[in-house]
Formats: sequence, C-alpha cells, structure tokens
Amino acid sequence: MDSKASAGGGTLSYEQAGVNYDLIDPLKVAAQRAAAATGAHLAAHGFTEVKASRGESAYVVDVGPFYIASIVECLGSKALVADEMHQLTGRSFYASIAQDTIAMAVNDLITVGATPLVVQAYWAAGGSEWFSDAQRAQALVEGWKKACEVCGVAWGGGETPALAGIVEANRIDLAASCTGLINPKERLSVGDKLAAGDAIVLLASSGIHANGLSLARKLVERLPQGYLTKLDDGRSYGEALLDATTLYSPVTEALYKAGIQPHYCANITGHGWRKLLRHPAQLTYRIHTVPPVPPVLRFIQQHAQQDDREAYSTLNMGAGFAIFVPAKDAQRTVDVAKACGIDAWVAGAVEAGPKQLLVEPLSIRFGDDDLQLR
Amino acid sequence: MDSKASAGGGTLSYEQAGVNYDLIDPLKVAAQRAAAATGAHLAAHGFTEVKASRGESAYVVDVGPFYIASIVECLGSKALVADEMHQLTGRSFYASIAQDTIAMAVNDLITVGATPLVVQAYWAAGGSEWFSDAQRAQALVEGWKKACEVCGVAWGGGETPALAGIVEANRIDLAASCTGLINPKERLSVGDKLAAGDAIVLLASSGIHANGLSLARKLVERLPQGYLTKLDDGRSYGEALLDATTLYSPVTEALYKAGIQPHYCANITGHGWRKLLRHPAQLTYRIHTVPPVPPVLRFIQQHAQQDDREAYSTLNMGAGFAIFVPAKDAQRTVDVAKACGIDAWVAGAVEAGPKQLLVEPLSIRFGDDDLQLR
Repeated sequence: MDSKASAGGGTLSYEQAGVNYDLIDPLKVAAQRAAAATGAHLAAHGFTEVKASRGESAYVVDVGPFYIASIVECLGSKALVADEMHQLTGRSFYASIAQDTIAMAVNDLITVGATPLVVQAYWAAGGSEWFSDAQRAQALVEGWKKACEVCGVAWGGGETPALAGIVEANRIDLAASCTGLINPKERLSVGDKLAAGDAIVLLASSGIHANGLSLARKLVERLPQGYLTKLDDGRSYGEALLDATTLYSPVTEALYKAGIQPHYCANITGHGWRKLLRHPAQLTYRIHTVPPVPPVLRFIQQHAQQDDREAYSTLNMGAGFAIFVPAKDAQRTVDVAKACGIDAWVAGAVEAGPKQLLVEPLSIRFGDDDLQLR
Repeated sequence: MDSKASAGGGTLSYEQAGVNYDLIDPLKVAAQRAAAATGAHLAAHGFTEVKASRGESAYVVDVGPFYIASIVECLGSKALVADEMHQLTGRSFYASIAQDTIAMAVNDLITVGATPLVVQAYWAAGGSEWFSDAQRAQALVEGWKKACEVCGVAWGGGETPALAGIVEANRIDLAASCTGLINPKERLSVGDKLAAGDAIVLLASSGIHANGLSLARKLVERLPQGYLTKLDDGRSYGEALLDATTLYSPVTEALYKAGIQPHYCANITGHGWRKLLRHPAQLTYRIHTVPPVPPVLRFIQQHAQQDDREAYSTLNMGAGFAIFVPAKDAQRTVDVAKACGIDAWVAGAVEAGPKQLLVEPLSIRFGDDDLQLR
C-alpha cells in the first residue's frame, strides 16, 4: 500500500484522495500569466503564436506553411498501481503504462487539430536499480514502441535519468512530450468554429485511463481483497484499472481523411465530464445518450459511494474523448471511429444558451462555475 | 544531507557518487533500437526523419520547407542543492534552477542547428505542499520566464503534477521539452560537414552547470562546513554550485546572423570533455588552449582528489559548449560569442588521424573507448 491514510466509510471525493488544487492553482495562474507574456518572442523569428491555443490542451505556433503544436504531459500516479499489481501477481503491466503515458500527450495534442509526429520519452527513475528489472524495462520499451505504431509517430528519443533523492526508490516518474503539425492549416481546431447546432460525439474509453487514480488507489483501503477484489465481470480491480488508455489519434486522422472537420475536441481527463465545458463560449451542451459505464468505473462509483453527479465530475464514465462536429457529419464521425475499432455515440448537441452541461438521462447539470481551467 | 553513504578519503569518482550506468545502459540501448524502428512512421505523413540526428542531442524531422527539432531534458539532481542551501541560508535559488532546466533542453537543441521556439515546463512535485512555498514557486516562474526571454522562446505551457508516492515529499522533478526549427535547412548541423582543418571554439561555462551534481553533492560529506565552505574567491561552495547554467542559444543565433555556419556543435554536459569526441568520425581533436577553470570546479577537483584526466572526463572545467567552425571563421566566432557576453577561445583544431582528444597543455589523451554514447 502506498497510501497510509486511514479510510472510513462515507463518500470518498477526489479532494479527499489527496490532491489539493488550492495549493497548486496560484502557481498555475502565475505560470500561465508569465508564459503568455513570452509569446511575443516568436516575432523575432518571423512567427506568431496562436493566441487562442493558450488555455487549450496544446500550444500552437504559426510558422507559415503550417502550424506546429507541442505539449508535455505526465502519466500521474498510475504506475503505483502497476507496482502494487506486480507485487501481488508477478505480472508486469509496464507495456500498458507506456501506452497510458503516450496517450496523455497524444490525446491532448490532437484536440487542436494536430497530427502527432514525434514523441519524446521522459523516464525518471528513483535510482539506477529501477532499470535492473529487465522484464519491466523491456515491457516499458515495447509498450512505448507499440503505442508509437498505433499513432504513427516517430519516437525521437528521450531522457532516462536516475534521480535518487528526488524520485522515490524503485519508482519511476513517466512523462511524454509530443510535437505535431496542423497541416493543412484549416485543420486548426481551437474553438472558433464551435457553434449551436453542432453535434457532440463521444468516443468510448477503455476504463479509468490515467485520471482519477488517486481516488482509485485510495479506495483500495476499503476493499477487503484490495486490488485483487473481483469486479462483476470476474476481472480483478487492479487489472481492470491497468487497462491501457485508448489512443484517439487514429480517429482524428481518419476523420481528416474522410473530409470531416471537427469544430472542437475535448480530451476527457481530470474533471471528468466537466471537460465538456472546456470551450470558453456561452453555450449549452445537452446530452441525450450516455455511453455504457465500464465495470471498473461503476465499481469505483459504488465503493466510493459517489452519486452520479460526483462520479461524472471526476471520472470519464465511459467517454474518453469528445468531438464536436457539424450535425450533418455526426453519424459519419461515429462510423469512422468504429472503423478504427473505437466505439462511439452521437450523444447530444450544442445549443444557444447559458454555459452548462445537461446530462439528461442522469438529470445532472454542470454550470460554468463547475470548471475553472483558465 | 540527502546522501547517507559514508565518505572516506581518497579519490572520489563519478561512479562512486552513485549513478551506475551499467544498469541503465542496456535499457538505453533497447530504447534506442526500438525508437529507431519508429522513424518510418513519418512516411505516412509525407515526412522523413533525419537519420543522422539519431544519436545526436536532438531529433530532427524533415517536414519540407524546414526541419523540426525536438527534445526533452531533465534537470537532474541540482534542485537538491538548492533545497539544502535554502535550509542553510533562507534564500531561494529556484530562479537559477529554472534557468538550469531550460538550459539542459535549449543547449542540446541548438547543437543540430535549430532555433529554439517553444519550451514546455515539466514540474512534478512530491505533493501539493511543494507549491505552498509561494516565494520558491514564484522564483521558479520568474526564472523560467527570464530564461525564455534570453533565448527568445515562447513558453507554451506545461505540467505541474503533484506526485506523492513517486516524487519524494517536498522535492520537485524538473524537466523541459523544447521544439525548434532549422530554417533555412542549410543550418542543419548533424556532423556531415565536420572535417580536418576545422577550428574548435570553446565557450565559457558559468560553473558546474547541471552535470556532475551527484559528485558535487557527495563531496559535501568531506567538507567540515559542507555547502557553506568558502572557495578561494570567498563565495560559499553551495552558492557557487548554484550559478545558473549559461544559455548558449543567443550565440548560435548570432552566428547565423553573422553568416557563420558551424560544422558541428557539442554541448559539454555529462562525460565532461569526452563530449568533444561525440562525432562518430575518425578524427583527432588537438587542444592547444585550455579555458580558465571556474573556482567551484577547481575546488571540486581538489577535494575529490581527482587528477586532471578524471576531472576533465567528468566536469566541463570551464568550457560549456564547443563549436566546430571553418578555420577562417574561428576568430569571428569568438568575437560573436563575446558580443553576446560569453567568453570564448579558439582552443584547438580538428585533424586527420585516429579518433582521440589531445589536451596538450594538460598532457591528457582521451580515445574512442572513453566515450560510448551510441
């Protein structure tokens, strides 16, 4: 067990699981302001930033013939679950952990319309010893390579530092950076096209992906069999948690080839479905169809005693990525996703109205004040 | 003290300082092989990798009108020194730590001829509490912004995860990713131009930069006053260690504007002067002029009881960056660097001959077997 706090009954919220955003947010705001002031440096090189990309999931620069998008993203704490499950079962889950890490970067990068081209690996271990488990290290390498194949990106290189004293002994801090092109420039998707009348297409998640793991790990304290507790489908909780995050770039690339131009995209990560409110405009998002909930997420909701509103505000609940497209393209978007092997639903529509998300089948409303990212 | 090992007398080598490359290198080789196999994915997008950039300090892709270079780099353990010095003096050194982190990425990226355009911040803390020290957090933001100004790059954004259980409590794992353009394409510098007759220009370092810190930290155990031990120039050892890494991109940009095309560049980081042997060709590098050694590096050499050969094989010893230029441009290269406020020397020449580095004033020879990076 990596968490030592005691766990009683009652509702377990994300905040109780240990991440205090009140402490981080002032730094984030200061960093965002300082970062925004540096965009002007590009003029000396003859380039400009795409201002609307500030606050979006990837940063975009106009370099003339096309846009360049870049990003760095962290896996988060999911590797701790892989470590626990290795102790319990002897199996290595680092191939899927590798895919999770790449997904964190790629799934964000594609929201702005970019084709991911190059991924760099950041694997910071707690000491040289981490790398001495050859099976684990090899799984990480193989999983990383396979995820690059799925996304059609080149693995450029990376860093494998041993950081004793900074990273905990026998742990690893995993991150990925990704650079891509928006080419042709019409593919740029930073929200200016989103409008009332657009359809909301949701793409299936494979499970928890790599967000909400603090909560998922905390929950283990309540389970008599811990990570080995069985879900309704017979799989263990730990194994189900470790299903690799779906990579969505094959879908966005296939949409482009099919002539479908998303008006906006949202990667549904932290903050769960509240991410559907990511766009700054005053628009109402009305959901009429809710995807089936993966067993591992239903299990978490039940054992954390969360009502639907709390669950959908924290976890992806079966929808890992949202694509906003012209209504006429909605069904084709679903078809394209399914042809990529990813289930999808025309789930709702964008309407004129106050900024809110209405999940009608569940009678949930999220308002503007439920998501403050900027 | 973050290191618990006891320290006797005698020579203190880098290996003794705790990083065991024998454990990391097999993974590195496996990762490099797997990464190399992914370069072909770019063809589906109509692009190609620059194969010669594999094994260089940044990865380069040909996207038609120009090349894109990208990289992710880790600060390493230097933040531990800043944390110790904060305990001892109450001062925050995180502004210079921020510059160090950006320098690790930018100084590598420019070796291939790239103009750095966008930096992304990766700040992974051991918990939300790290960010509650507002002075420290603000220093990190301000230092990051200032380094971006010096390099003329846009700070695109980044990640500020709280990774309790992975990163140690009250520590931070710092890294930077950087994306740049090689434009015009003639600026590409991956070694094909290097030839006998070229001059070797060395650019001054500001001190230890961010490599060799494991050794520098280990050494503290031998010093009665630890980080507060005075150097000959009256400054404390800890303060001198924390001098920010020199940013070299203003020099490479100014060289381009002056019409000087480097034939090759080497960022002198880990492995010290052995990095001058980075280029794969069979060539002899003969050094006739050795830059003055910064007091903090002389101090480390003396107290670690290293002979010159060991010191120059580990630390930058006053030369932070090497530029290989046509002999006719050597003095102008020095002048351009000095105009940027960075001291420089025409230090030697490239000759036909076996692969070796001859540091004549110190009677040191490094051969091909002294540096195995590929």
